[in-house]
Amino acid sequence: MCTAATYLTGDFYFGRNLDYEFSYGDEVTITPRNYPFHFRSLEKELTAHYAMIGMAYIAGDYPLYYDAVNEKGLCIAGLNFVGNAAYQEPVPEKDNVAQFELIPWLLGQCASVKEARELIARMNLTNIPFSEKLPLAQLHWLISDRTESITLEAMKDGLHVYDNPVGVLTNNPPFPYQMFQLNNYMQLSPATPENHFSKELPFKTYSRGMGAIGLPGDLSSQSRFIRAAFTKMNACSGDSEEESVSQFFHILTSVEQQRGCCLLENGKYEITLYSSCCNADKGIYYYTTYDNRQISAVYMNHEDLESSTLVRYPIIQKASIHTVN
Amino acid sequence: MCTAATYLTGDFYFGRNLDYEFSYGDEVTITPRNYPFHFRSLEKELTAHYAMIGMAYIAGDYPLYYDAVNEKGLCIAGLNFVGNAAYQEPVPEKDNVAQFELIPWLLGQCASVKEARELIARMNLTNIPFSEKLPLAQLHWLISDRTESITLEAMKDGLHVYDNPVGVLTNNPPFPYQMFQLNNYMQLSPATPENHFSKELPFKTYSRGMGAIGLPGDLSSQSRFIRAAFTKMNACSGDSEEESVSQFFHILTSVEQQRGCCLLENGKYEITLYSSCCNADKGIYYYTTYDNRQISAVYMNHEDLESSTLVRYPIIQKASIHTVN
Amino acid sequence: MCTAATYLTGDFYFGRNLDYEFSYGDEVTITPRNYPFHFRSLEKELTAHYAMIGMAYIAGDYPLYYDAVNEKGLCIAGLNFVGNAAYQEPVPEKDNVAQFELIPWLLGQCASVKEARELIARMNLTNIPFSEKLPLAQLHWLISDRTESITLEAMKDGLHVYDNPVGVLTNNPPFPYQMFQLNNYMQLSPATPENHFSKELPFKTYSRGMGAIGLPGDLSSQSRFIRAAFTKMNACSGDSEEESVSQFFHILTSVEQQRGCCLLENGKYEITLYSSCCNADKGIYYYTTYDNRQISAVYMNHEDLESSTLVRYPIIQKASIHTVN
Amino acid sequence: MCTAATYLTGDFYFGRNLDYEFSYGDEVTITPRNYPFHFRSLEKELTAHYAMIGMAYIAGDYPLYYDAVNEKGLCIAGLNFVGNAAYQEPVPEKDNVAQFELIPWLLGQCASVKEARELIARMNLTNIPFSEKLPLAQLHWLISDRTESITLEAMKDGLHVYDNPVGVLTNNPPFPYQMFQLNNYMQLSPATPENHFSKELPFKTYSRGMGAIGLPGDLSSQSRFIRAAFTKMNACSGDSEEESVSQFFHILTSVEQQRGCCLLENGKYEITLYSSCCNADKGIYYYTTYDNRQISAVYMNHEDLESSTLVRYPIIQKASIHTVN
Repeated sequence: MCTAATYLTGDFYFGRNLDYEFSYGDEVTITPRNYPFHFRSLEKELTAHYAMIGMAYIAGDYPLYYDAVNEKGLCIAGLNFVGNAAYQEPVPEKDNVAQFELIPWLLGQCASVKEARELIARMNLTNIPFSEKLPLAQLHWLISDRTESITLEAMKDGLHVYDNPVGVLTNNPPFPYQMFQLNNYMQLSPATPENHFSKELPFKTYSRGMGAIGLPGDLSSQSRFIRAAFTKMNACSGDSEEESVSQFFHILTSVEQQRGCCLLENGKYEITLYSSCCNADKGIYYYTTYDNRQISAVYMNHEDLESSTLVRYPIIQKASIHTVN
Repeated sequence: MCTAATYLTGDFYFGRNLDYEFSYGDEVTITPRNYPFHFRSLEKELTAHYAMIGMAYIAGDYPLYYDAVNEKGLCIAGLNFVGNAAYQEPVPEKDNVAQFELIPWLLGQCASVKEARELIARMNLTNIPFSEKLPLAQLHWLISDRTESITLEAMKDGLHVYDNPVGVLTNNPPFPYQMFQLNNYMQLSPATPENHFSKELPFKTYSRGMGAIGLPGDLSSQSRFIRAAFTKMNACSGDSEEESVSQFFHILTSVEQQRGCCLLENGKYEITLYSSCCNADKGIYYYTTYDNRQISAVYMNHEDLESSTLVRYPIIQKASIHTVN
Repeated sequence: MCTAATYLTGDFYFGRNLDYEFSYGDEVTITPRNYPFHFRSLEKELTAHYAMIGMAYIAGDYPLYYDAVNEKGLCIAGLNFVGNAAYQEPVPEKDNVAQFELIPWLLGQCASVKEARELIARMNLTNIPFSEKLPLAQLHWLISDRTESITLEAMKDGLHVYDNPVGVLTNNPPFPYQMFQLNNYMQLSPATPENHFSKELPFKTYSRGMGAIGLPGDLSSQSRFIRAAFTKMNACSGDSEEESVSQFFHILTSVEQQRGCCLLENGKYEITLYSSCCNADKGIYYYTTYDNRQISAVYMNHEDLESSTLVRYPIIQKASIHTVN
Repeated sequence: MCTAATYLTGDFYFGRNLDYEFSYGDEVTITPRNYPFHFRSLEKELTAHYAMIGMAYIAGDYPLYYDAVNEKGLCIAGLNFVGNAAYQEPVPEKDNVAQFELIPWLLGQCASVKEARELIARMNLTNIPFSEKLPLAQLHWLISDRTESITLEAMKDGLHVYDNPVGVLTNNPPFPYQMFQLNNYMQLSPATPENHFSKELPFKTYSRGMGAIGLPGDLSSQSRFIRAAFTKMNACSGDSEEESVSQFFHILTSVEQQRGCCLLENGKYEITLYSSCCNADKGIYYYTTYDNRQISAVYMNHEDLESSTLVRYPIIQKASIHTVN
């Protein structure tokens, strides 16, 4: 399915693996400040708003963002939450935001998670689809800035906002279940394991890396959450942009989906279509794809952010191999 | 530590992750046919031999290969086997090959695993170090061609040659232990799991990828063996060079070591310094490094293979990021 | 902590392991029909009610039941639910039942789980302790008859009643979390595992019983829930009383706590103090203790059930060993 | 299959679970000192030897012991080792002992493991079956006294004697594999787990007994070995006979096979037919059966050990329930 993560060195980094069996045709998309956002059930329009950059499927001229970051460093990624996501009919006393409008609504107006919490408190997430051809995606969201992360889940019993101290999100089950399950892994360590089994027996650390024995290695959403949490919480690197971006992609690599390991009932394989890493402080969107391991970078600030027109860079799928000789 | 793997599409691919806490200074090295190999305890010299390409540390003018492939498609990788590797004193009736000479000895003369088996049968692997500064590495080897793989282990009780139907090698324990342990994972599947627990209970496949729950996710050598075996045996891709190479690197990615997840007692972290993939049919050596995700390619056949001088391409460590805008 | 389970052959059986570091002094206790139950916050008294049998600590003349069964075959066991249980202040519009009164309240009046559900719907579970010396136990309950089981949990957000298709209860986490976690084990089987890993590799079922590899073996409440569920759902036996009771104790044995395996922070060990099995149809209460493996049986119907006085049989702790020669 | 274990308090205890789908008709059997043992390929006869007690199938008048202890406190149990056990043709220079003669040969003559090692060093274990109807059992053995245990395995490449510091034996794989696998569990503990995952995350020990999360709970021989090792190495009890025997049976209970959890290909279930515990110092053989949980005790020293006739006590299968009222 998907995994999103955060990473803080000198700057703040936010990104995700998008895991699926096919691509809708994704584009790194910059929405400048004066691109007008209209909302289906809201009178308010966002004709001037924070600029944002992220990966989107462009439907007509509308950016359906999978993940994006605004110029203030607020970050959101939507991840599959099938079977648990539930959206509501519009109601009079709330800000009725359609599910597909969530990212523009929050990134357009909020400079921080704190501000996003306030908008969410007044929000009703509605079940209005973008179009007949693009039905409702069942999603939940990781919303982060450099100081905190939250998980937003719209379920039958309403909107839930959870503190997310891990800064990682995958898919099912609901977030409290994911966090609870981490307790079962608290003894895992990057360091050499100690013998607590029996002082009378001679144990041997026959390999490096034995301290994390018990860490799950499969591609289910619960196992990816635990593994990404372990990798992210223990990750370390230098503070430079290159070192930080490099390390961020390695965090995502720990939960990458290889072709062949996740067979769907339709006979197709789910793979990691793209991995992204956005420098939320500088507005640089880096990505790789399954077949193009070289990192590509799109700079938000290299574009005219006062424009009212989307800037679109279709994803580069083809491998770029450096021939040495 | 390390993981080596093979992959067959139209061509045959062989490569490895080299996991360690520092690099000796590695170079993609082509040894042409007339580079003279002298052997410490053998009168025979290899003054004309098969050309080979691989990753090596060059000591003086001598290529200490970590992994290499010759022009006939025979492939060898040496991987740490600490605590179990044992080499012998030279003996009169055998071909006394020093541990560091193994790759030149076999790749210089053998066109296939079958031929390598014959040389190994006459061989005594000796404990003569390359130099005082480069003491004996404790290794075992994966030796492969497109039809079969074997594991070679020199232990106290002598040389062992094992059929390796998986085409994967990591480190400890000895290979029969690794293969035995796979039995405990036979029920793992890339497909959706079936309910065998109880027909009376309603189970839910809440996520894709649940069929491999139980697959270990840590970095110990046993867990990497199982995980790489699962990924490799289920891997699939198109037959083109690009698709094959891409998929091969994804197999290695499944057992990549991220910085922070394997803390050594000296306070350093073991990481995947480089990953390699050699097209054994065409003699193209591809690699990536921890910080340079872009694939670099060195072509053996672009060099003068009748030469007697090593061709050396120091590894490119620095990230090459493609700036889009 | 504790594990409760149900088992249906010809008759219906219900029982539990009580796991703790010391015993309060337990007695198999029969409460006849005319023993008067007064309730702290209810005007209603139960002066005539269903008779019940179970294990209790008798405080004064009051039976604080851990688990009990009434003459209609309704069964309840209370199990630790520390950190999650929350009881309320009395409220006007509800039946205010103190936590320690729950078992008498339900078993005294209900002939079935269906009837218990009705009482629970009108009930407020209050935080009134039995006495200063016996503070509130943090519990949740398994309530069963031969047709269905439910789990009752009183948490901060109120009373929860969950269908329990497994007929097993342990301790934390809340029941929906326990049930969800079972999904991760659906592929476990009592039968020989099949090879889904790779058709190209030769796997060996080197042992019987390999189909359930992955089943957790530790004593945490989540692992005991999964293991007891697997054992119970796959358990089979003849229908006779002896065979049924024997098999029931074996289900409980699968989650028994051995002295030494669960070390508390006070230096004591938690062990299975007693295991019980009640034939809910015939009112026979069987039990064993940690040191007395022989089954003892107390028959409710051998007592005068029209009495108003508790019948008490202190638990037999001492081993009864049959000397053959 | 089976599990054997040792336990030392004031006295030394030795016993086993015998797991199988049917019983041959087992009897607690005392072989007095003058019962004559003839050997198929040895001229030497044991007409006067140490007395022994254990569980046997009596074929004709010959005790085919599954497990036994002699009057000096030497203990042996044979456990299935299917697919790995290999016996030899008789050879001239060795003591040729048929597989079924091993227990009488060693227990008849040796007062200690040390003495048994000497006999084993001169021994050739032969492939002569007891009779046509009782073909060769494929076994390996746990041989113990109060100071040490060894594992004896006869394989294609000859007899292996391994120190067994755990004092536990199950079945496949060969003993070095079993011991090696323990390394992967060294961090398991009876105590509360510590957080090594991340100091920045709040973990909760939601249950007692979480320190051993990762301990396998299935019935495969490898999982039983690990679980029995953990339980045995951490077991503790008082030194009295009752406490010691009680605790020993609890060690065996941790690897008991419940009916329903191990389904064979013939449709039958493998269960723990009997569990035994022998006080090796006093010659008292205790046992329970699947349906008879009460411990029965047979005293070797209550019989005339100078006799030449087997003393036989058929196993008591029927439950003995203590009726309280």
